[in-house]
Amino acid sequence: MNAPRQPLKSLDDALAELLSHAAPLPQTETLSTFDADGRVLAQDLVSALQVPPQDNSSMDGYAVRSADVAEAGAVLQVTQRIPAGTSGAAVGAGTAARIFTGAPVPPGADAIVMQEDCEALQQPAGAVRVNIVPQPGQWIRRSGEDVTRGAVVLQSGARLTPASLGLAASIGLHELKVAARPRVALFSTGDELVMPGQVAPADMPAGAIYNSNRFFLRALLQRLGCEVTDMGIVPDQREATVQALRNAAVSHDLILTSGGVSVGEEDHVKPAVQSLGELSLWQIAIKPGKPFAYGSIPGTAHGICHFIGLPGNPVSSFITFLVLVRPFLLRLQGATQWQEAPVPMTAHFSWPRADKRREFLRVRRNAQGGLDLFPNQSSGVLTSAVWGDGIVDNPAGQTVAPGDTVQFISFAGLLA
Amino acid sequence: MNAPRQPLKSLDDALAELLSHAAPLPQTETLSTFDADGRVLAQDLVSALQVPPQDNSSMDGYAVRSADVAEAGAVLQVTQRIPAGTSGAAVGAGTAARIFTGAPVPPGADAIVMQEDCEALQQPAGAVRVNIVPQPGQWIRRSGEDVTRGAVVLQSGARLTPASLGLAASIGLHELKVAARPRVALFSTGDELVMPGQVAPADMPAGAIYNSNRFFLRALLQRLGCEVTDMGIVPDQREATVQALRNAAVSHDLILTSGGVSVGEEDHVKPAVQSLGELSLWQIAIKPGKPFAYGSIPGTAHGICHFIGLPGNPVSSFITFLVLVRPFLLRLQGATQWQEAPVPMTAHFSWPRADKRREFLRVRRNAQGGLDLFPNQSSGVLTSAVWGDGIVDNPAGQTVAPGDTVQFISFAGLLA
Repeated sequence: MNAPRQPLKSLDDALAELLSHAAPLPQTETLSTFDADGRVLAQDLVSALQVPPQDNSSMDGYAVRSADVAEAGAVLQVTQRIPAGTSGAAVGAGTAARIFTGAPVPPGADAIVMQEDCEALQQPAGAVRVNIVPQPGQWIRRSGEDVTRGAVVLQSGARLTPASLGLAASIGLHELKVAARPRVALFSTGDELVMPGQVAPADMPAGAIYNSNRFFLRALLQRLGCEVTDMGIVPDQREATVQALRNAAVSHDLILTSGGVSVGEEDHVKPAVQSLGELSLWQIAIKPGKPFAYGSIPGTAHGICHFIGLPGNPVSSFITFLVLVRPFLLRLQGATQWQEAPVPMTAHFSWPRADKRREFLRVRRNAQGGLDLFPNQSSGVLTSAVWGDGIVDNPAGQTVAPGDTVQFISFAGLLA
Repeated sequence: MNAPRQPLKSLDDALAELLSHAAPLPQTETLSTFDADGRVLAQDLVSALQVPPQDNSSMDGYAVRSADVAEAGAVLQVTQRIPAGTSGAAVGAGTAARIFTGAPVPPGADAIVMQEDCEALQQPAGAVRVNIVPQPGQWIRRSGEDVTRGAVVLQSGARLTPASLGLAASIGLHELKVAARPRVALFSTGDELVMPGQVAPADMPAGAIYNSNRFFLRALLQRLGCEVTDMGIVPDQREATVQALRNAAVSHDLILTSGGVSVGEEDHVKPAVQSLGELSLWQIAIKPGKPFAYGSIPGTAHGICHFIGLPGNPVSSFITFLVLVRPFLLRLQGATQWQEAPVPMTAHFSWPRADKRREFLRVRRNAQGGLDLFPNQSSGVLTSAVWGDGIVDNPAGQTVAPGDTVQFISFAGLLA
């Protein structure tokens, strides 16, 4: 058998092609704002009010008419007290209002003096000495400073964060319409795989290895808001694989597998998908992570079920998920942004052998503000992704010397 | 009333003092490795095996004796077939084994030739022509290349990520002992606060604002693995506050509030905590986020319950959580690392007015590899934390001009 060399596809082309298949899922759900962290908005959030609703004090102190305090030391009569949550009467000439953080600035007053700059007097009783000259407007937060009435504070397609839940709440939204969770069926193939817990390390048969990919893939999927069905390890047999795929396609938006998509003839996943639907095998010009498969299977209950086959090597599978599957799943949820911007950083390592493929090197930020390289960059060494706190996106054909500027992408950004 | 000016405490001092109170909680739990993402390990993970278990092929191809192929074009008889999950017999002189990715390298063979570099022959039947000269060791992954038997792959105190779950699984661990979730009681104070959903925007009374802090605080706590009890808005009344604190202390490790910890006399949280336990009010030299309170209340069922009071301004509350409460909660879980390393980046903005306090400016990475500044850095403008994708940690007294190098910390890292 002569295996044909397939042409390599660039990662950018692969991503564009993959995303062209990722029509956002039509289903949405309405959740309590409290429960929407990490989900993708399926509505624009339009404010029905100003935030803050009126001019208010940003300090505990006194609301004054600044014209009354032309010089430090002016004494004003305190005629009212305005805690947060109440509203005061107009401040007349020569008077001041005791005011607290968040309370509306009363009519007439045009400045707040911090209490640290004032002195409450015994004589005359109920008076205050102002020890600074206030500037008009000082320590006043203006109505609408954060949000103006009618503003779109977040657009459909935005991925919600803790801060955006707070912003939604600040305009009175207790529920949010978000994209439904993608339903993902996850399985592994490979007769050499054994599940941890089923066989003790000492009893592992020759050639057997523990399945590790399914553990990180499940966690990665959950971090992206997916509902995961774990189908376990499917035996390397054509019929079992066809059956597993057919069952999964009925009730899932995506079937994700690792292993079984290289050009080796032992793989049963490719013909199984092909017998049910369509499949393209890609050779992507990245390292780790060359083999990749995209396809689709008709689902019975609803349109198609996507199929993605990741490489079986742990680091290849991990990296390929981050650079291809993550954008795909965010797009399925209607997200409009999925790129984690790289930041230029200084290599404190050398990488003397350039590769023909674009490489994602596992690195870690060091205390000197530079990047250290994990010594073993083999696609089988998952330790590199545990030790590292991110990757360098290194162009094809590029060597790296200490001091060079490289493009760093943190795992934190890719795992969010 | 003359409010005394309190001395400012540096953030580093505040963090060190806060962490000195954060004795790791003694409780642990044992979880399925699948369910341990984001949790903190309470055991060292020691490998009972080599990963990979034996030398194996990293390609689909042929296992050969490199001495048999001194020149390209050598023809070898294929005497066996070794799929992954099986093990082969010794490879004799002049023969080769068909081998697949992950399969153990058979005795005698010292190199793998990719199938793309070979040609299966019709004549002689069952022979293969090797079209390159293999280097000894090529395409062989060595036993123990990832993990050696006896190695500690992760130490107690490590926070688990998807990749570390994969690594744990790869050494056969189906369960992991992790720190128990900190139990956190969350409440807000302030009579001006209204819960979204309870009053429509058009019906909001003068001076009222929607509670937003509790929404992001709950999400932030959950991201850190906490079990959150939401106690709602406690009225600005001494007795109600005392009662709420006393009830919460019985069954929580931390009571977290926002609002009510500035020096304003309208705050009932301080005297309430003081009547039950101890409380220190800090003025921290950061902006946003100056006021902060740490205290403790005796719990009945178990030691003390910590108390942390955050400022009421949304951005102050948000930032103070990230720089102080996040490390505290990770330390309560026994984590040994909580610092998100800043990266040097280029400011594409100017910040002409230096502040006496260390500032955390909300910024966003732009397409040119620099940082843009959100125009309104007021502590009341939560939009800044939604628009931004991180903060610049700007030293006290420091102005910034376009082109200056600043220290950037991404929200992704701080929110993980």
